[in-house]
Amino acid sequence: MAVANNGTSKQGIDPPSETTTRRAGDVEQPPPPTADGDAAIASVVQRWKREDFQEKAGLLLRALQFLFSLLSFVLMASNKHGDWMNFDRYEEYRYLVAISILVFLYSSVQLVRQVRRFSTGRDIMPARAGTIFDFAGDQVAAYLMISASSAAIPMTNRMREGADNLFTDASSASISMAFFAFLSFALSALASGYKLSKHSYI
Amino acid sequence: MAVANNGTSKQGIDPPSETTTRRAGDVEQPPPPTADGDAAIASVVQRWKREDFQEKAGLLLRALQFLFSLLSFVLMASNKHGDWMNFDRYEEYRYLVAISILVFLYSSVQLVRQVRRFSTGRDIMPARAGTIFDFAGDQVAAYLMISASSAAIPMTNRMREGADNLFTDASSASISMAFFAFLSFALSALASGYKLSKHSYI
Repeated sequence: MAVANNGTSKQGIDPPSETTTRRAGDVEQPPPPTADGDAAIASVVQRWKREDFQEKAGLLLRALQFLFSLLSFVLMASNKHGDWMNFDRYEEYRYLVAISILVFLYSSVQLVRQVRRFSTGRDIMPARAGTIFDFAGDQVAAYLMISASSAAIPMTNRMREGADNLFTDASSASISMAFFAFLSFALSALASGYKLSKHSYI
Repeated sequence: MAVANNGTSKQGIDPPSETTTRRAGDVEQPPPPTADGDAAIASVVQRWKREDFQEKAGLLLRALQFLFSLLSFVLMASNKHGDWMNFDRYEEYRYLVAISILVFLYSSVQLVRQVRRFSTGRDIMPARAGTIFDFAGDQVAAYLMISASSAAIPMTNRMREGADNLFTDASSASISMAFFAFLSFALSALASGYKLSKHSYI
């Protein structure tokens, strides 16, 4: 048995002993986490998992932005019930419609780009321009959305003190959607700003 | 002369020739930029200059934020001319006053901290907490200021169609100051977000 434990012995000649079977079992078991090579592998796997999570979270955020800005635009643009109950009589509501169209177009482009990148792994834009475009676009969209929803709130509040009807309800719904769009753009701006400064572009 | 050009010759014995004087002159002249050591020195000096510029630009931005949020608050809070011309009859203006007080307090803390850091070189907060506080505070302040100034604009526009007096002028001035405060906070948030992700805290 002392000869079988020696690495230079010819194991083909020795009969299968208790020691060699234990060795074969060791290979199949997961390696102990103290080894340096294993730690490196674990770190790479963890990084892949994180990047995969970032991609999926990014796609979800883009989908939410698309949805919220579309809803905000549609709800306000269809908000015409005659006389004083037309959205286009009030500059706040016209501003909200204008901003939500712009932001909706931007979020459509971003959604298409993100879906394409998710399925094919390639980007339409070069990496550097794409990251700068992401960050600048998200940050500007967040500022525009909070501005538009803030502008429309006081007038709606004042109307709802007098009358509470289909017009004021649709306005409130549109404002809420604009606010949710702002939240998702603010999150996105955080993520893309982080990504931008992790690369050594600037 | 061929001996003097050789590096192993005893230069103390040779009379001061044309070649050695030219050599002494070379040492005093700025070194050519092709040498590796000189490039490293130039890079370090450039980094110092950049950090110095960042500190000074940061101080200027903090001073501007303090000034604009103070002006916005004072102009609106003193805007009482009796009857319908009191700022506290309108929720937009009360919102603007509330937000500009909050932001003014925040910018005072930041200005004191920045001046202290600029003069003594030390920070009140630990580095990690300080950078996170900077970024979160600047970004939230920017969102709050754009929201407050957007909310107050439509009502002021509507009033100025009817009457153009001291009350509406002071409101407009306050709104403009709030917008300038937003711009300086947005710049600051860009800078502190960049600083945050350059450090490996997150």
